Amino acid sequence: MRTLKEQTILEAQAIDAKKAAKKLNLIKAEEKKQALHTIAETLEREYKTILKENEKDLKKAREKGFDAAYLDRLALSKERIFEFANGLREVAGLEDPTGKTLSDWTLENGLKVTKVTVPLGVIGMIYEARPNVTVDATGLALKSGNAIILKGGSSAIHSNKAIVSIIHTALSQTKIPKEAVQFIDRTDRETTRQLFTMKEHIDVLIPRGGASLIQSVINNATVPVLETGVGNCHLYIDASADVDKTLSILVNAKTDRPAVCNAAETVIIHKDWLEKHKEELVRTLQEHHITVYGDEEALAVIPDAFPAGESDWSNEYLSLKIAMKVVHHVDEAIAHIDKYGTKHSEAIITENSQTALHFMQAVDASAIYHNASTRFTDGGALGFGAEIGISTQKLHARGPMGLPALTTIKFLMTGNGHVR
Amino acid sequence: MRTLKEQTILEAQAIDAKKAAKKLNLIKAEEKKQALHTIAETLEREYKTILKENEKDLKKAREKGFDAAYLDRLALSKERIFEFANGLREVAGLEDPTGKTLSDWTLENGLKVTKVTVPLGVIGMIYEARPNVTVDATGLALKSGNAIILKGGSSAIHSNKAIVSIIHTALSQTKIPKEAVQFIDRTDRETTRQLFTMKEHIDVLIPRGGASLIQSVINNATVPVLETGVGNCHLYIDASADVDKTLSILVNAKTDRPAVCNAAETVIIHKDWLEKHKEELVRTLQEHHITVYGDEEALAVIPDAFPAGESDWSNEYLSLKIAMKVVHHVDEAIAHIDKYGTKHSEAIITENSQTALHFMQAVDASAIYHNASTRFTDGGALGFGAEIGISTQKLHARGPMGLPALTTIKFLMTGNGHVR
Repeated sequence: MRTLKEQTILEAQAIDAKKAAKKLNLIKAEEKKQALHTIAETLEREYKTILKENEKDLKKAREKGFDAAYLDRLALSKERIFEFANGLREVAGLEDPTGKTLSDWTLENGLKVTKVTVPLGVIGMIYEARPNVTVDATGLALKSGNAIILKGGSSAIHSNKAIVSIIHTALSQTKIPKEAVQFIDRTDRETTRQLFTMKEHIDVLIPRGGASLIQSVINNATVPVLETGVGNCHLYIDASADVDKTLSILVNAKTDRPAVCNAAETVIIHKDWLEKHKEELVRTLQEHHITVYGDEEALAVIPDAFPAGESDWSNEYLSLKIAMKVVHHVDEAIAHIDKYGTKHSEAIITENSQTALHFMQAVDASAIYHNASTRFTDGGALGFGAEIGISTQKLHARGPMGLPALTTIKFLMTGNGHVR
Repeated sequence: MRTLKEQTILEAQAIDAKKAAKKLNLIKAEEKKQALHTIAETLEREYKTILKENEKDLKKAREKGFDAAYLDRLALSKERIFEFANGLREVAGLEDPTGKTLSDWTLENGLKVTKVTVPLGVIGMIYEARPNVTVDATGLALKSGNAIILKGGSSAIHSNKAIVSIIHTALSQTKIPKEAVQFIDRTDRETTRQLFTMKEHIDVLIPRGGASLIQSVINNATVPVLETGVGNCHLYIDASADVDKTLSILVNAKTDRPAVCNAAETVIIHKDWLEKHKEELVRTLQEHHITVYGDEEALAVIPDAFPAGESDWSNEYLSLKIAMKVVHHVDEAIAHIDKYGTKHSEAIITENSQTALHFMQAVDASAIYHNASTRFTDGGALGFGAEIGISTQKLHARGPMGLPALTTIKFLMTGNGHVR
């Protein structure tokens, strides 16, 4: 319920977003599609404006001494902006996720029931210094008929403001009201607290970023949250694992893109396999510059390995480090994953299909792999089209979230004076 | 993360529940089904024990001066207990919601993807003095492979303890570990706070009860919540509404069971209809002892009506009172529902199919009716079998929640050394 205190800027934005969402809900699929193309073209046309503003953010970030990886995520270029635009065109081409009849039936009394998909309404997106999220999230939200309130990291504020301003310019030429995209440029605590608790106007919060950002949203939000991202992923090498498959999966899961959430952080190895294949394993780890943090049995086998502490089992390295645990039974591996996993992606490598089945049934995670790399947990790789994030929670959406995750359902009942 | 402070009783219960959930996840559908039959038989056999304990609760409730409706919800009888048992048998007979392949496909690279349903894990059920929820929720949780932690209202504590004790006796003869059903008999604040924030052990909280109970869970929980129940439902009578359908739907939606969440609380009437049919309307309201709280235009027409204040538009009466608003256009009705509705069930009565379509598209609610009573928003009535509650939120499940709402999904990927 609204209190009588003065309306804040954020509240006014949220009310505008909700009104825009109501209009957006009645807009035709073709018009939403066209709007995304218009945004894409406008971004390409105005890319220099974005680059100019991005330079301001980069300058500040360099002054603050942020590391290369951080600057890399923040930095834009003509090529990257054109990629964003093409991303929007791809989303535009996807099937509209709203207005789909999921099922319909007629009760014995003749009452007709139809279950249809509808937009969620207003999405609150909270993210760090990645300007690409501003474009991606807007595209996915609008395509699925939702308004979006964007709260990006303060280090990308100039880039984000420029992008949103261009999106607004583009939307003014379309059927989508520009109020459907709101950008919060304040970072004070009270604004954040309000954003987290504005249940009346916001239907879902989606945090995208590191563990602390996500935790802060979960702990403080009364608006429902779609939890994304933290992946402490495990690779379990069973006694009967094929050595070639194992080594190529290990290298891929650890080194292909170490900083992403579906990279492997711990390898759990059956002692029989380790005994048989230690030379190849050590050679592969060395070739790929992977540093091992191991338990006692691992330390006995891997030269130059460091002893693993509690934090090695529980944290994401997001680098070329890997924790290593040796087990004597698959159930020990399952118990370890149960204790330390983040329910993101887990893999077993084995030629024993019974063991694989048991692992896949017993492990609690959004994505479980048999003889494949955890790197496939990704909307694009699994064929969902663009994704808004990877859900590590169990309600609503689990695993890579494409457009359907941004919809809910309505039951529509048609009668002829039906009473109960 | 666990802190190092002493483990509380509740934490021990939650850990036991989680362990039991892991076992339950591997139990066959037939065994879960059989277990529910065993609980049903044991409840029937031991009904006298329950009645004796229920008498203690009733005595205390009478001493405290609770009203008849409250006592009625609390009071058990042989017949009611046998009804609970039959409810369990019905749930036992429903299709198992877990282990279902929702979709499967093979990527171009040959990686096989299967999306299967699995139990949520551990459900925390928070409810008021209705011992029937103890049985119903346990049945639905176990059938869907979940462990359950029950926190019922303190006025039903003796009844609930007796029921859970009998459930435990029954489970000890089945494949389901009795730790899968946990009962919290403490009502102190610290226990409640812990229950709301035990994200590590509990997968979802489901509050069932009045608005203040639900609000308290939403405001204080970090565990994801499935919000249920508050229904401030509207009936909109359009200019072209058929008078016979209108009056029978109005009477049914208001008087059939005024205390339930799908009863109508406000009737919005188009002025043209009201002018034409005021006599029949007044006669019907009087015949059914319905008291009207109206806006000015309603007061001018309905004798003995009281003026409506802000709370009449926003609160559930759960009695034979109804708020009445007169509008000049369907969009006024939609705006009113938008402002005061709880997204539960909303109805339009009209012979104009264009207006009906517009109303059904524009109104944001879980269930929207055309020429039918809001009373159909119910798992049983819509053919879902038993329900765990009616979701008024948009994530995960919306509207009546049957067994599928108690499941989540896993993506299972099978490869042959696949890397990205």
